[in-house]
Amino acid sequence: MNLLLLEEADFIAADRVILRDRRLTHMQEVHRCVVGDSMRVGRIGGLMGSADVLRLEVSEAELRVTLDQPPPAKLPLTLVLALPRPKMLRRVFQTVAAMGVPRIVLVNSYRVEKSFWQTPFLEPEAIREQLILGLEQARDSVLPEVVIEKRFKPFVEDRLPAITEGTLGLVGHPGNYPPCPRGLDEPVTLAIGPEGGWIPYEIELLGKSGLNPVQLGDRILRVETAVTALLARLF
Amino acid sequence: MNLLLLEEADFIAADRVILRDRRLTHMQEVHRCVVGDSMRVGRIGGLMGSADVLRLEVSEAELRVTLDQPPPAKLPLTLVLALPRPKMLRRVFQTVAAMGVPRIVLVNSYRVEKSFWQTPFLEPEAIREQLILGLEQARDSVLPEVVIEKRFKPFVEDRLPAITEGTLGLVGHPGNYPPCPRGLDEPVTLAIGPEGGWIPYEIELLGKSGLNPVQLGDRILRVETAVTALLARLF
Repeated sequence: MNLLLLEEADFIAADRVILRDRRLTHMQEVHRCVVGDSMRVGRIGGLMGSADVLRLEVSEAELRVTLDQPPPAKLPLTLVLALPRPKMLRRVFQTVAAMGVPRIVLVNSYRVEKSFWQTPFLEPEAIREQLILGLEQARDSVLPEVVIEKRFKPFVEDRLPAITEGTLGLVGHPGNYPPCPRGLDEPVTLAIGPEGGWIPYEIELLGKSGLNPVQLGDRILRVETAVTALLARLF
Repeated sequence: MNLLLLEEADFIAADRVILRDRRLTHMQEVHRCVVGDSMRVGRIGGLMGSADVLRLEVSEAELRVTLDQPPPAKLPLTLVLALPRPKMLRRVFQTVAAMGVPRIVLVNSYRVEKSFWQTPFLEPEAIREQLILGLEQARDSVLPEVVIEKRFKPFVEDRLPAITEGTLGLVGHPGNYPPCPRGLDEPVTLAIGPEGGWIPYEIELLGKSGLNPVQLGDRILRVETAVTALLARLF
């Protein structure tokens, strides 16, 4: 935890918060805080800054906060991701939050196992928990938007064109395609497939909505690694 | 498993192998192989190609192999990595093997907890197991070399200069440094610090051995994500 994130409910005054949950445990056990210590904090959806520990007891801590710094810029990106297997999904939420993706659309694909859609990790609270871990890691206070699209075709045909408009549309896909571009400033819509990749029909449909295949080389990467590698290459 | 890796001990003739272990289980349970199926295979340290399933029983499979393709090129890189915490270490071994790092040096650092050096994940067989998983994922047959350097100063002063010679020496480090370069063709020696980063003394010593700091932006990434992001940016 490189940043302590504050919820609205933590505030008892404009500059005072009370913490009682895992953040208190973390302050005590990992940071070994004492009264008078200063910590980096951020208000979820708002500014970042510092907090002084005014009071620290077994069951709660009181902090005085100064919020005066903007969070780091997000990437100019919408990430369209075929739903990964549950264990990978949790890590991907952390990774995309840490890397500054502002919007992720989880979409079905032919090679997504149907059972993946039943995972409790898709519950809003479970998603938020992983996103928060990513923000705490990277020092960011703004949650990415997560959109869930269980049906591929209606999403790609009816809603994707509006997302892609005015952006560079790309699909990460192994094969004889142009290499993924580097160091872009422009907004991008990037689609990344499931384990085993998109099927040709899906590539064709994504293409009609303005997303064209690019590749990262012969190596087949796990979804989490592919996401990180593509984002690091693009921006 | 996108590639079935074959050990020397599997061969009963120049073009025949017998499999009995987790690879047999994987063929049966994940790939649902039947006699006559063809699979992608690679000989560890050698060529890649395909194998036909000649015989498939509960306890063993016999395959006829044709090895005629070179493995994918490795990155022109030596990665010097402060020893990550054990759970992260396992994933990092998979990631570096998958991404094509040919040599990784695990080194001590002030912010590496001493207990990390006791992990069973540093046993040669445990390292090899994770590297194999990475190679199977990415379709590569050549194991990276792993060097363990428990003492930072003697390694950096006495052995690092010979590694760095003739390469671009870089240290991934947050701060007011030049951005990490992109799309290099030249050989690189890249050092990546522990959680919490290198201390100034370590940065100074790495600098004397030819490694200069570069940064990836304000966001603090987990070690595994930082490794992937730096490699994807550099090459």
